[in-house]
Amino acid sequence: MASAAASSCSSISMMFLTHSSAATSSTAHRLLPPGCLRRRRLHCHPLQMGPASLRCLTFPSSAAAPSPPHVVVPHASLSTEVNTKVIDGKAVAKQIRDEITAEVSRMKEAIGVIPGLAVILVGDRKDSATYVRNKKKACESVGINSLEVHLPADSTEEEVLKHISGYNDDPSVHGILVQLPLPSHMNEQHVLNAVRIEKDVDGFNPLNIGRLAMRGREPLFVPCTPKGCIELLHRHGVSIKGKRAVVIGRSNIVGMPAALLLQREDATVTVIHSRTSNPEEITRLADIIISAVGQPNMVRGSWIKPGAVIIDVGINPVEDTNSPRGYRLVGDVCYEEAIEVASAVTPVPGGVGPMTIAMLLQNTLISAKRMHNFE
Amino acid sequence: MASAAASSCSSISMMFLTHSSAATSSTAHRLLPPGCLRRRRLHCHPLQMGPASLRCLTFPSSAAAPSPPHVVVPHASLSTEVNTKVIDGKAVAKQIRDEITAEVSRMKEAIGVIPGLAVILVGDRKDSATYVRNKKKACESVGINSLEVHLPADSTEEEVLKHISGYNDDPSVHGILVQLPLPSHMNEQHVLNAVRIEKDVDGFNPLNIGRLAMRGREPLFVPCTPKGCIELLHRHGVSIKGKRAVVIGRSNIVGMPAALLLQREDATVTVIHSRTSNPEEITRLADIIISAVGQPNMVRGSWIKPGAVIIDVGINPVEDTNSPRGYRLVGDVCYEEAIEVASAVTPVPGGVGPMTIAMLLQNTLISAKRMHNFE
Repeated sequence: MASAAASSCSSISMMFLTHSSAATSSTAHRLLPPGCLRRRRLHCHPLQMGPASLRCLTFPSSAAAPSPPHVVVPHASLSTEVNTKVIDGKAVAKQIRDEITAEVSRMKEAIGVIPGLAVILVGDRKDSATYVRNKKKACESVGINSLEVHLPADSTEEEVLKHISGYNDDPSVHGILVQLPLPSHMNEQHVLNAVRIEKDVDGFNPLNIGRLAMRGREPLFVPCTPKGCIELLHRHGVSIKGKRAVVIGRSNIVGMPAALLLQREDATVTVIHSRTSNPEEITRLADIIISAVGQPNMVRGSWIKPGAVIIDVGINPVEDTNSPRGYRLVGDVCYEEAIEVASAVTPVPGGVGPMTIAMLLQNTLISAKRMHNFE
Repeated sequence: MASAAASSCSSISMMFLTHSSAATSSTAHRLLPPGCLRRRRLHCHPLQMGPASLRCLTFPSSAAAPSPPHVVVPHASLSTEVNTKVIDGKAVAKQIRDEITAEVSRMKEAIGVIPGLAVILVGDRKDSATYVRNKKKACESVGINSLEVHLPADSTEEEVLKHISGYNDDPSVHGILVQLPLPSHMNEQHVLNAVRIEKDVDGFNPLNIGRLAMRGREPLFVPCTPKGCIELLHRHGVSIKGKRAVVIGRSNIVGMPAALLLQREDATVTVIHSRTSNPEEITRLADIIISAVGQPNMVRGSWIKPGAVIIDVGINPVEDTNSPRGYRLVGDVCYEEAIEVASAVTPVPGGVGPMTIAMLLQNTLISAKRMHNFE
């Protein structure tokens, strides 16, 4: 049941990710620590949530409960010492968006080109519509043109391919996103492969992943969420070279590319997954932890080496009767325990989440610059 | 200096590998254990070797010194107990070649198709000529057609590309190998990328590596040496799922794809490289060790967890005044120490070496079967 619930909730748990359906990883119930008895994931469709309760420590609700989606935890109530430990993804993402805004403006003035991102949405899923709307808003906020086509759920694969082909050939489009999931009658892989690799700003094309894995090769685009994780480490001044890193989760969109990126930066990387027999023991050896499994509060304080840096990719909805929405979002890492042991932690929400869209904008800008040889 | 020597000797140290120049990894002098004082790598061109000495323990020379290349250590002098520990790559490779012979024959009888492997050799390097000759012999031994073109060192890149294009279009060719290194005036990556991915039996195309890295995707070909490592584990009855594995070395042709393969089989994998600060400590946690760094006897007995299984990819020439050739081949792992601690070890030579060509033949057969829909 835990497994099924995790799956059904994945689209909301990945609210900030580029692809709603392609959640962080297959669930890993074997990874659940035995001590965290009060944790319960919401067993429901994301848009039909009922009551539940989830806490890893008995903090007063008002202090511990993160805000609903899109509202960043202010940490105002935390001590100064704790504040320095928080990797503020919202602030970093804003800084990056400001940099993008400046670059987009400089490019427009210099060569008259405005980067363009095209999004293809098929069907009427409300969550997908929300993601697409958020991407559009984000584009507008930095001056990137956003184009969108919304096709009915009963469209044929050929119609989708026709639109992809149009965007492939459109010189004003520098990035193309197909919002997932597609209706079940379509072959997702077939559709995604139709996107020209030079415009595949998601970076999920196998050719791109291969280049990411190979020494001496460069990917055209680094996938947005793992790129955001590494960017948070860089901008927080965390040294990666020679460090031991553990990536929890081996999904194609987060865990696997995050491990490849850490290795490219000379970390010694171990990937933990659902078949790992001693995840706690292995995680405790790490200087850097990136968790992307979609298991609320799985990583407890006892898993963390004192002084480790933690990037928490999980965005998991859990019951919270004190919240007006009846739920709140928590990460894969028990934040209250982690903040006591680690040297730095990303909060959820307000950590990796805001970085994903910032990296999508950055990839679109990179693509436009590359196509026009603009430096 | 150690670094330079390792590099200059890499072509002979990888005698069994498909690409002579693309050695296992950049050297990792920081990985050298301090205790192994008598180790010395040959500082010479592979074909101009002088005297030296290399031993990790003071065994009698007659028992410990492996035979020259292509002659497999018989292990007749080892006890029965030790014999069960030896993963006999030569025997496994023979078994696989016998299976390939039978399949090639069955295919020929059923549909009249004979698998064909084309090798392109440019220039007059003696080592390259030897590798090509060995591949040709191996093809003949299993009934695979081998085609070869030998171009002068001053050929243009266009001439090489023309031959690749010819083989790409030739329906009797199911696999194409460009023998490396190419003369320095050619762009290796450009030339290799010209090989049709359906005939890239080396499996080094980034698109192929990307598919290897991604869950739910299948590579067209698994690179030969790492494939041989996993095949040795399978045929020796070593369970991989849930095991802790350490891969030492992160080269594109062995370490990196070996790590991806182990992870595909549900091992928990850590990749150790030249920037890893505590390789011994990490290696000692592993149930399975694959070493591919090209550092003679680097992995000592103290690095090995009792009962671990070791696949030693390194084939390093070291001085041996007792050998008629003045050198002998040793692995990355100190064999005499490993055999006392591990539950199974591949010898050098006679371990992974013979598997690489067997896997090349297997990939060529797989390619022919796929092109002709033959099962």
